Amino acid sequence: MDGMQFDATRRTVTPGERGAVAIVGAGPGDPELLTLRALAFVQRADVIVYDRLVGSAILDFAPDNCRRIDAGKRKGGAVMTQTAINALLVRQARLGRAVVRLKGGDPFIFGRGSEELDYLKRAGIATRVVPGITAATGCAAASGIPLTHRDHAAAVTFISGHAAGTNDGLDWAGLAHGDQTLVFYMALSTAGPTARRLIAKGRDPATPVAIVENGTLPTQRTILGTLGELEYLVHANAVSAPALVIIGTVAALASAMPREAIAV
Amino acid sequence: MDGMQFDATRRTVTPGERGAVAIVGAGPGDPELLTLRALAFVQRADVIVYDRLVGSAILDFAPDNCRRIDAGKRKGGAVMTQTAINALLVRQARLGRAVVRLKGGDPFIFGRGSEELDYLKRAGIATRVVPGITAATGCAAASGIPLTHRDHAAAVTFISGHAAGTNDGLDWAGLAHGDQTLVFYMALSTAGPTARRLIAKGRDPATPVAIVENGTLPTQRTILGTLGELEYLVHANAVSAPALVIIGTVAALASAMPREAIAV
Repeated sequence: MDGMQFDATRRTVTPGERGAVAIVGAGPGDPELLTLRALAFVQRADVIVYDRLVGSAILDFAPDNCRRIDAGKRKGGAVMTQTAINALLVRQARLGRAVVRLKGGDPFIFGRGSEELDYLKRAGIATRVVPGITAATGCAAASGIPLTHRDHAAAVTFISGHAAGTNDGLDWAGLAHGDQTLVFYMALSTAGPTARRLIAKGRDPATPVAIVENGTLPTQRTILGTLGELEYLVHANAVSAPALVIIGTVAALASAMPREAIAV
Repeated sequence: MDGMQFDATRRTVTPGERGAVAIVGAGPGDPELLTLRALAFVQRADVIVYDRLVGSAILDFAPDNCRRIDAGKRKGGAVMTQTAINALLVRQARLGRAVVRLKGGDPFIFGRGSEELDYLKRAGIATRVVPGITAATGCAAASGIPLTHRDHAAAVTFISGHAAGTNDGLDWAGLAHGDQTLVFYMALSTAGPTARRLIAKGRDPATPVAIVENGTLPTQRTILGTLGELEYLVHANAVSAPALVIIGTVAALASAMPREAIAV
């Protein structure tokens, strides 16, 4: 037995296919960062169930008669539960519609795409996952910050900011040491605890950090500083979500763009 | 002083712009995983300097009169050095051409895009970085393997396979512990040393692994097994580059696609 192997010629879900669900990454916000395949699925969707971070410019690619369902909001302002979203996707597929589940970034990086995929498979619904530009690479490109670098970082780690301060199963000593770049998603509310935890485990407070707010959008701001002042920078600059925090010596390379830098 | 901040309204390079260089991520191989912006740059390029892993289907999007320069091969079979590529990009831009530097995956993840960006900036050439789908997310979507998962992995780390066995500045004990998913790029030749190093530092040999060969291409193979048998699986299945290795409990979730699984 030489392991288990998949058949690459297997049948897959195509754009506009009825009774099926495509779980599609919409990228970090800029509509031009949609992939060609994601666009094809959106353009032929009967129903799109979308998340809060998916911009209206991306939804505009859908046909006029496509039903757009905001999974981030409901009457009264409550957010749809994951259970309700799962049930909605199955119901729409069983009604014979071409369903697109449109998620910010990439479905398999902090997107809970696997939970939806698992539920749909158990329900016998044909599914396909279409990857998207994840926030880290989108923000890195837009800020001139390489996530890996021969001289600075042989690895990069993406971490949910919600992990900080919880029993998350992560090895924080390992995160603090080594030359890898750390990228925290949904990092604002835990910026202080995250920085303190890394410093307590031995990371230099002078380690460069970059805060990227509204990454890839026209309203993007990139704020540079050090790990020791991370929490202060978030508050002093009134940073609001969505925001990403990049920690590591590569963050300082953004300053190689002096033409565009301004002091606040 | 509240850190340093960039002006989001700064001028940027547009598709077809002469005398400028766009460093563009071409994604993991499947041409439909190109972004809309990457496509726009390729379609209006005068010169494309491309890497070995960029498929011909992507180059076919370029205009007929676009000059295509293979940076992965030269007369006599030698690969162009990074220095030669840097000089080529500057020369072509100074000749007033719309230059696209097309790289597999994402330019800022193991793509040495930052070295080219830095060189071009020093030479005074207008540049822009366009992100691409990195191999990890492309292969994950194509194999049904979530890179993060609420129940399995609060983080994911991308590592160059070339790092294994060298003085890489990484904290291997940290990589071995914790619940994060590890994704090794260019991992084939170092699969054995990588697995032994992680196991020596305490990672369970029974940890699930997935080897993804030719990820996102019609020839993709996904081979599942355990960390302890990783090197054996590479050889027994005669895996060839390009290949990616995903290590972590999430790798076993690929087997939630029983319909498509076949034993080899």
